[in-house]
Amino acid sequence: MNEVAGRRARGGGGSVRRAERTAVHFETARFIERNIPNFEILNEEALQIIEWNADTVLEEIGVNFPENPGALALWKDAGATVTGDRVRMPRGLARKLCATAPKSFTQIARNPARNVDIGGRNLVLAPVYGPPFVRDAEGGRRYATIADFQNFVKLGYMSKWLHHSGGTVCEPTDVAVNKRHLDMLHAHMVLSDKPYMGSVTEPSRAADSVEMSRILFGSDVVDNNVVMTSLININSPLTFDSVMMGALEVYAKAGQAAIISPFIVGGAMAPVTVAGTLTQVLAEVLTGVAYSQLVRPGAPVIAGAFVTSIDMNSGAPTFGTPEAAHITYGAGQLARRLGLPYRSGGAFCGSKLPDAQAAYETANSLNMALLAGVNFMLHACGWLEGGLVSSYEKFVMDADQLGTLHHLAQGVLMDENAQAMGALHEVGPGGHYLGCEHTQANFKTAFWRSDLFDYKPFETWDEEGARDTQTLASLRVKKLLSDYQPPALDEGIAEALDAYVAQKKASMPDAFF
Amino acid sequence: MNEVAGRRARGGGGSVRRAERTAVHFETARFIERNIPNFEILNEEALQIIEWNADTVLEEIGVNFPENPGALALWKDAGATVTGDRVRMPRGLARKLCATAPKSFTQIARNPARNVDIGGRNLVLAPVYGPPFVRDAEGGRRYATIADFQNFVKLGYMSKWLHHSGGTVCEPTDVAVNKRHLDMLHAHMVLSDKPYMGSVTEPSRAADSVEMSRILFGSDVVDNNVVMTSLININSPLTFDSVMMGALEVYAKAGQAAIISPFIVGGAMAPVTVAGTLTQVLAEVLTGVAYSQLVRPGAPVIAGAFVTSIDMNSGAPTFGTPEAAHITYGAGQLARRLGLPYRSGGAFCGSKLPDAQAAYETANSLNMALLAGVNFMLHACGWLEGGLVSSYEKFVMDADQLGTLHHLAQGVLMDENAQAMGALHEVGPGGHYLGCEHTQANFKTAFWRSDLFDYKPFETWDEEGARDTQTLASLRVKKLLSDYQPPALDEGIAEALDAYVAQKKASMPDAFF
Repeated sequence: MNEVAGRRARGGGGSVRRAERTAVHFETARFIERNIPNFEILNEEALQIIEWNADTVLEEIGVNFPENPGALALWKDAGATVTGDRVRMPRGLARKLCATAPKSFTQIARNPARNVDIGGRNLVLAPVYGPPFVRDAEGGRRYATIADFQNFVKLGYMSKWLHHSGGTVCEPTDVAVNKRHLDMLHAHMVLSDKPYMGSVTEPSRAADSVEMSRILFGSDVVDNNVVMTSLININSPLTFDSVMMGALEVYAKAGQAAIISPFIVGGAMAPVTVAGTLTQVLAEVLTGVAYSQLVRPGAPVIAGAFVTSIDMNSGAPTFGTPEAAHITYGAGQLARRLGLPYRSGGAFCGSKLPDAQAAYETANSLNMALLAGVNFMLHACGWLEGGLVSSYEKFVMDADQLGTLHHLAQGVLMDENAQAMGALHEVGPGGHYLGCEHTQANFKTAFWRSDLFDYKPFETWDEEGARDTQTLASLRVKKLLSDYQPPALDEGIAEALDAYVAQKKASMPDAFF
Repeated sequence: MNEVAGRRARGGGGSVRRAERTAVHFETARFIERNIPNFEILNEEALQIIEWNADTVLEEIGVNFPENPGALALWKDAGATVTGDRVRMPRGLARKLCATAPKSFTQIARNPARNVDIGGRNLVLAPVYGPPFVRDAEGGRRYATIADFQNFVKLGYMSKWLHHSGGTVCEPTDVAVNKRHLDMLHAHMVLSDKPYMGSVTEPSRAADSVEMSRILFGSDVVDNNVVMTSLININSPLTFDSVMMGALEVYAKAGQAAIISPFIVGGAMAPVTVAGTLTQVLAEVLTGVAYSQLVRPGAPVIAGAFVTSIDMNSGAPTFGTPEAAHITYGAGQLARRLGLPYRSGGAFCGSKLPDAQAAYETANSLNMALLAGVNFMLHACGWLEGGLVSSYEKFVMDADQLGTLHHLAQGVLMDENAQAMGALHEVGPGGHYLGCEHTQANFKTAFWRSDLFDYKPFETWDEEGARDTQTLASLRVKKLLSDYQPPALDEGIAEALDAYVAQKKASMPDAFF
C-alpha cells in the first residue's frame, strides 16, 4: 500500500453511513445466468479440424513477440523454438499451458451487490470501449471530452441491465494522453459502484490502475481478488506487441483479469473465410492465454474474439453480418473446449446514426452473442459508426434492449403455474384471458417490457409529436443525467483517490501521443 | 375448366416468347435450405408435458366449431364427442389424424424457377399480410388502395431475397370488400411470377382463387399441384369459425395448401405464460390440421403459430420480445415432432415508424424465426405498427435484411479452400490478407453485403446529406418502382384473367362489409 492509499483507513464508517442515507439507489439486474442451450454451429469434426489447424499454425508459422526479450525467454524455457522475435510451439504446448487458467472467476465491485461471476453459463454486460468521438441528437458528432466520459459512466451506473462500468467508454481527448487513464479510472471509481476495467495503453498506466484500485478496495482485497478486467488486444495476425504484453504482464502478476482478444476484420487481419479466421483466432487466443500463464500460472483470463467482416467495395468493416455470427458462434465452442470464459459480441453497427441500420445490425449482434455463449460482452451498449463514436442515444437504446437478453436467457418455466391448465379450463373456447385469475397473478412478471419504446396507440403517439426512437432516447438521456446521484463513497477514500490523481498528474508534463 | 379458363390455350407460344424477350429479369434467391442446427429451447421432458397437456385440453375442454354442422358430423364420425358446437377428442385422436398430412410439399409458381419446397430444413419468405394502412416517408400514414397493393406486389417481385409474393400485402380499401380478392389475385398473377396465396375471407372467394389459378396454370396443373398456400387463422382460444373453416374446406378439397394458424396475443387469447400458450397453440394446431385431414386426407398444410406478447400497461401487442422468442422456438419443436411444416416469425414490430425501435424488434424476430426452424415466414418484410401498416420503406429495409438469413443458414464451410491454411502460411505474423491470393479468389462471395445500408466513410456520407436508413429506403422504393417491368405472361392468359375479374365484378353489387 502506498502513502496515499494509507489514508483509506481514516475515512471511517460514519461518513459511509451518512453518504448511503442520502444516495439515490438505482436498480441493477444481476448478471445473466443462462437457462437456455448454446447454439452450436460447428460439429465435432469441424472443431477438430480447426483445433488441428491452429496447432499447425503455431508449430509451422509461429507468432511474433517483438521487443520483448523477457517473453521470448519464457517461451524458450517452456519448450518453444525461438528464432528472432518468432515463437514456434510444438503441437499441444499452448493448450497444455492454458490449463492452469481458471474456468471462471469473480470480479468484485466496491458495492458487493454488483460483483460479477465471469465464466460458466453467465453473461456479464459492459458498455462501449474506445471511441474518440461522441454523438448526440443536439450536438452532433464531435471529439469526446472527459465531461462526456463522466456522462457515460453515469449512464452506465443508472442502466438496469448493465452489470459493468467498462473502461474507455469514450476517449477523453481534452486530457493529455499520459494522464487520461487517471481521470478515467477516477470516474469509474467515484461516479459508479459497478466493476470496471484498467488501463492498458502503457505498462505504467496498468500499474497506476492497480494502485488506484488498492486505494479504493484496500491492498489486501486487491491482492486476493479480481478487481479489474482489462482488455489486451492481439495485433492480428499473430503479433503480440510489447505495450499490450507489458500491460498483460502487470495485470497477470497482480492477479488481475485480462481479456486476451484478437481484433480482426476478416479479409484484412485474417483469412476471408470463416474457418480460416477461426483457426487464426484460436491460434492467437491459445498463445495469449498460454503467455499469461507463463507470467503467472492461474492468472484469470478471458478468451476473446473481436471479429467482423469487411465490405470489399469500400474496405469498411461491416457489422451484424452473418459471417460475424458464424465466427462468434464457432469461437464460443472453441473457448468452451478450452475451458475458458469467452468474450465476444457487442452492440455493433456501422451506421453513422442511431437509426434502423444501427438497430438491425446491433440486434443481430446482441442475439448471436447471447446464443453463442458469450460470458463477457464489451460494447454491449453505445457503440456507433464502427466503434468511432460513443452515441448518447444509442447507449440508452441498447441498454434497454439488453433487458431482452436477460429474459431470453431465463428459458421456459415448466412448473404447475407456468403450465396454466387451470387458466385454460377457466377460460375455455371463445373466452379471453385478460381478466382471469392466472393472468392477474402473473402479469407483472410475465412479459419483458421496454422502458424506452413507444407502445401507445397511434393516435396518442401522433398527438404527442410522432416521436421516433432517437427522440425518445434523447429525452431519456437528459432525464437520467439530471436524476443522477453518485453512489455513496467513504470520504477518506474519495480524498485519497483525488490526491493520487493530482500527485501523478503533477509528476509529469502533458504528452499527447 | 370453366369457359374463361378455356381461353388459355389460345395464347400460343409466340406471345410468350415475345414477352420474354422484352421483359427485364430480376434475380431471386432460391428458398433457404438450412445447413445449421435448429435452436431447441425445450428439453424432452418439457415437450412431453406440453404434448400431454394439449391432449388433456382436447379431451376435457374441447374446441368449438360454431355454425358448421358438416364439421361436427366429420368429427363425430372420426370418434370425437360432440356436444352442441363443442368437440372433445379422446387422447391421441387429433395426432393420429394429422399423420396423413405431408411432411413437405412443393408450391409451384408460374415461373418454375420460383417454385418453393415448403417443409424439411427449408425456409420460404413471404411479405407482410393484412394491413389496412400504408405509410411512406412522403405521404405518411393513410388507408391502403389497390394502387398501393400493386406497388407492394411489384416490390416483392423485385426483392432478391423474397421467395413468395404473399397474399393481402395491404388491404385495398378503395375496392369493394366482395371484389377485392379478384383484384388482389390478379395483381399477384400478372405483376409477379412468384408463388402466391389465395383468399380466405369467404368460401366463395376461396373458390374464385382456385378458378383464377386454373386460368393461370391450367386445370390439370391445379388438380395435381399446390399452386396456392392460404392463411387460415384460428379464432383463439380454441374456436374454429365457419368462414375460415369454409375456406379451409375449399382449399383442402382442391388439394391446395393452408397455413392453419392460431393468432395469439399472449395474456389475451392464451395464458400469460409461455408453457400455457404453447399448450393452447398445440391443441389448436392439432385440431385444425386434423380437421383438414378429415376433409381430405393428405391435404397439404402448414402448422402455424402467430404468437406475441402484450404490454400489460397499455394492452398493446408487443413484438421482438423474449417471450415471443420462447414460444416461437418451442412451437417449432412441437411442429417438427408432429412432422409438419412450420409457419411462424416475421419482420414484427410495434413501432409507428421504420426507426430504431422497428429495426431492433424486427431483427430480434427474424433471427429467432431462422433458428426456430420456421419453414414458411409470412410478414417477412414490410410489417409496421403491429401489423396495422404496410410500410414502403420498411418493406425494402426488411427485404434487404432477409439476405442475412440466407447467408447465416449456409453454415460454415470446412473444405480445403475454407480452411485457408495456404493464406495463413502466405501472410504470416504482421502481414495483411487484403492482397493475398486466397482473398482475391474468394472475396466476391465471402461476405454478405447490404444493398441498402451506408458503408461509406463518415466524410463521404456527410457530404451526401447525412442520410438515415429511412431516407435511403425511400430512394430505393422509388428506384425499384421506376425500374419495374412485369414478367412475361401469355397474352391469352392475361386476357382470360381480365375477363374473369370483369365478369365476376359485374355479377354482383359492391359490398363494403
